[in-house]
Amino acid sequence: MSAVELEKIREEINDTDRELIRLLKKRFDLVSKAAVSKKEFGDKVYSREREAYVISSAEKYAVESGLPEGLLSDVMKRLLRESYKICSATDFSYPKTLKESGDIVIVGGNGGMGRVFSRYFEASGYKVFSFGHRGWDKAPEYLKNAKVVIVTVPIDVTVEVIQKLSPLLREDQLLCDFTSVKAPIVDAMMKYHKGPVLGLHPMFGPDVKSLVKQVIVTVPQRDEKASEFLVEQFRIWGAKIVKSEAADHDKAMSIIQALRHFGTYSYGSFLQSLNPDLKRLIELSSPIYRMELMMVGRLFAQDPRLYGDIIMSSDANLELIEKFVRSLSKDLSIVKDKDLDAFTERFLKTREYFGEFADVAFKESGSLLAKLQDERQ
Amino acid sequence: MSAVELEKIREEINDTDRELIRLLKKRFDLVSKAAVSKKEFGDKVYSREREAYVISSAEKYAVESGLPEGLLSDVMKRLLRESYKICSATDFSYPKTLKESGDIVIVGGNGGMGRVFSRYFEASGYKVFSFGHRGWDKAPEYLKNAKVVIVTVPIDVTVEVIQKLSPLLREDQLLCDFTSVKAPIVDAMMKYHKGPVLGLHPMFGPDVKSLVKQVIVTVPQRDEKASEFLVEQFRIWGAKIVKSEAADHDKAMSIIQALRHFGTYSYGSFLQSLNPDLKRLIELSSPIYRMELMMVGRLFAQDPRLYGDIIMSSDANLELIEKFVRSLSKDLSIVKDKDLDAFTERFLKTREYFGEFADVAFKESGSLLAKLQDERQ
Repeated sequence: MSAVELEKIREEINDTDRELIRLLKKRFDLVSKAAVSKKEFGDKVYSREREAYVISSAEKYAVESGLPEGLLSDVMKRLLRESYKICSATDFSYPKTLKESGDIVIVGGNGGMGRVFSRYFEASGYKVFSFGHRGWDKAPEYLKNAKVVIVTVPIDVTVEVIQKLSPLLREDQLLCDFTSVKAPIVDAMMKYHKGPVLGLHPMFGPDVKSLVKQVIVTVPQRDEKASEFLVEQFRIWGAKIVKSEAADHDKAMSIIQALRHFGTYSYGSFLQSLNPDLKRLIELSSPIYRMELMMVGRLFAQDPRLYGDIIMSSDANLELIEKFVRSLSKDLSIVKDKDLDAFTERFLKTREYFGEFADVAFKESGSLLAKLQDERQ
Repeated sequence: MSAVELEKIREEINDTDRELIRLLKKRFDLVSKAAVSKKEFGDKVYSREREAYVISSAEKYAVESGLPEGLLSDVMKRLLRESYKICSATDFSYPKTLKESGDIVIVGGNGGMGRVFSRYFEASGYKVFSFGHRGWDKAPEYLKNAKVVIVTVPIDVTVEVIQKLSPLLREDQLLCDFTSVKAPIVDAMMKYHKGPVLGLHPMFGPDVKSLVKQVIVTVPQRDEKASEFLVEQFRIWGAKIVKSEAADHDKAMSIIQALRHFGTYSYGSFLQSLNPDLKRLIELSSPIYRMELMMVGRLFAQDPRLYGDIIMSSDANLELIEKFVRSLSKDLSIVKDKDLDAFTERFLKTREYFGEFADVAFKESGSLLAKLQDERQ
């Protein structure tokens, strides 16, 4: 093959790419049209069955056409993300599940999470009122026609805010919170409010582009029926609802949030004390380490108070962290003794605990690392 | 819009998807043709400039066409990965950089990494001989026409193997190793071999689909000129070469590998001792925690000896780990005292250390988490 022929192939590839982009735009426009029509039928933005069908039929057709396995699944997933974003755009609107009249009041609604939910409620035809620690004089007015009151303020003042709020609430109003610790907060809501109570914990941050497939934990406390419309509203936005008892939620969060954030925090601050050349470290690192460094860097780009609050929010958290540090000391003595047998024994016991998940994790993380590698220049 | 009309739009979307797949297949075939022709010109599989050009021009055209930002970059990166895989396929061949005759001998070549490199060397027209601890009787025969000898055996026997190998080597033969600790190994190679010596550390595992953009650390020791063809060969395969001194490499690896693996190991084994319901934990978790759990599960799906060896491979590693555990105890007392000021001070100091990287990490990890979310069902 001559250099001219190679150049010709490259031009053909470029032409194909432009054709591809034209088709993607066509698809994008069709999806926008379909999304708008879904609203009329009261359809959910995200349907697990529909997504699975779209992905698997594209994948099947692609493999039959001679394309490599997995390529179309990945491309379709990326396109679907864009479809979900269409439905999260500011000018999009959702069906409203509350059939009677009633407003939404978000206390602490000027924070990141408050703003995300305000936007979604408004896009579903609700009137939303938000106030922070400055707007209390307006509270009685805002609450007059409220159906739902959501408290989303820092953990250490949440109970105080609930108490202060309670004399202003009627028994037909649903009281909710977004706090990451549930037991003490739902207890306070039950104590100070006589109407329906639903604890909530959205498992994502304010930087999400769409609520599709994002988890919201619900902790129903009183008159679950009265909160059904709200949970259904979350589902229509695409969120995945996971129902839990307060105590189970808190136990899991000690692990998922407090312990994990502590680990990331202490790893990052240890690295700072070592002071290695970060650029050189990244240059020398494997994709796995770059990913881990990225997750560490991510934490330190955010609000220290948020993480301090989560870690120190309960004595159970601190007990768990102390146990963890003790367990690390035991591991340290194993490696200091170069006791490969003890190391292996603990390793295999842990593999057994992870069970099938270890292999799933190996495969899935491989695909994630490949995506990370796609990004590398 | 009627239900019939919605159904019609869905059918149009399906048709567009099939058209898309046909175009992707066409692109795939063109890329295969171009890849083969590259070999004739001795081109590298991966060109940073070409990749950047392909991605940015597609992205630009897509945004001009009204598609959302970032979509085409992601799709193109995924397609390029597939192009690189074409060049890593077993039936693909690469230009050979060694102009004289000479074979490759891989000691420990039946291990995962040995097999990956065997395949690449063979695809570049080299004759490759591999043997493990059983094949030593054949070694003199294999080494007769060898130009390069690569030692890739477990760390704790590497020096021994080098010593045993040395009387069989000629001074014109290049001796290399793949060990993850460099200083003691390159010292041993220098001591026992009189010819050219090049330490190597491939920063990836045997499950990679292609060497494109994978890092190989080179630690030149004697007669760097004699190893130039080999480094160029790695570049042609698409690898990214990072040159380092042995001591600097080892210091970085104590952090990147030993400390990190220790952290993951001890977190996993602590989780096992807590014994929470893993399925429930995953169900309740945020994308970040699922990602971290996946990286932990990944480690335990692999060989305990590999990780034990890496962690315990040097006293410097153990000192670093001990320092880390001490630092954790300090962090523990900060959170036990609920000292939010001390917590915040350490937090901000660490943010300062991470510098611009914290924000980059926040953005990039956001895009990675979005990809992880794409996978969620």
